[in-house]
Amino acid sequence: MYPDSLKNLIESFKYLPGIGEKTAERLAFSILNLEDEQVELFTNSMNDVKSKIKNCSICNVLTEDDECYICKSHDRNNDVLCVVEDSKSVFLFERLGMFTGKYFVLNDLISPLDGINPEDIGLEKLLDMIKDNNFKEIIFAFKPTIEGETTSLYIKKILEDSNIKISRLANGVPMGADMEYIDSLTLERALSDRKVIE
Amino acid sequence: MYPDSLKNLIESFKYLPGIGEKTAERLAFSILNLEDEQVELFTNSMNDVKSKIKNCSICNVLTEDDECYICKSHDRNNDVLCVVEDSKSVFLFERLGMFTGKYFVLNDLISPLDGINPEDIGLEKLLDMIKDNNFKEIIFAFKPTIEGETTSLYIKKILEDSNIKISRLANGVPMGADMEYIDSLTLERALSDRKVIE
Repeated sequence: MYPDSLKNLIESFKYLPGIGEKTAERLAFSILNLEDEQVELFTNSMNDVKSKIKNCSICNVLTEDDECYICKSHDRNNDVLCVVEDSKSVFLFERLGMFTGKYFVLNDLISPLDGINPEDIGLEKLLDMIKDNNFKEIIFAFKPTIEGETTSLYIKKILEDSNIKISRLANGVPMGADMEYIDSLTLERALSDRKVIE
Repeated sequence: MYPDSLKNLIESFKYLPGIGEKTAERLAFSILNLEDEQVELFTNSMNDVKSKIKNCSICNVLTEDDECYICKSHDRNNDVLCVVEDSKSVFLFERLGMFTGKYFVLNDLISPLDGINPEDIGLEKLLDMIKDNNFKEIIFAFKPTIEGETTSLYIKKILEDSNIKISRLANGVPMGADMEYIDSLTLERALSDRKVIE
């Protein structure tokens, strides 16, 4: 019914997360309205992402080089390491621009129910990085879920003989939130993590 | 911050309708998880869609050939022509499989407010197709809006000296709809278009 190329493009869009039949059709048709240069950039960058992007050999963040620009930089604060669950978190922090230390990206968070055990999350590489540096503080910036907490506690236990300060992101009421919509777990954590106003 | 290829891919996804920054990021990252063959199909079909797809020389529907498979077919009912506003409608009807006649795809619907006048919608080609065939009925399958109605009436007027029966899709209550959510215009049309139960 559809011309072959259009049918294949619709199928391709359906590979992407959250894209169903209708959206795939709409997106595929919209390609017809793009400029030639836009389509060229689109397909070239897609091929490049697939062929060039790899994990930094030191910290795992996505990069086109052997070492990412953060690991290569001489302007970072080498005292602090922020351990995150994926490269997206790194880009998020970098966009924020408030954190100037180093990062390490785990392969995953520990989640026994999903078959992800401590040996699967890439701890050796993290321990290598900690050994090769002289961090004074390690910050866990995982999502506040069972998996995030489990992973934090597990790594904290491994590092308990070191003299490194271990911290996590504050949990609490998100800025601008309506109090009545805050769940009880968040409220509980916000209360126990309360800060003295100085 | 992002590696170049990833940044370009995010920008590319933002060309697509309804895709903002966050979604573009999510989609671009998801490309990393596709198989090589999937990315190959994706980029090849995107290039093909852009380079091969054109309008059928007779009826305007999107096709990779000079004439679409419907115009080339000898199995279609040559008595009926369905005039639609875009190629998507043709594919929709074809998927339904209930209509066996020919189609004609207008360039657009008449919409003076958007600067689309009768001379912009590709009427000459439609009149050529009508002249070259011997249609007994022409069905307008436009969306039920001012633009759709205006276009229907305009073409009907042009064809009023011919002996061709002119019809439009029935308007009315959509199947499965909740009566209380039907707008008054639809209800009015459903009432005036009411059918005798036989």
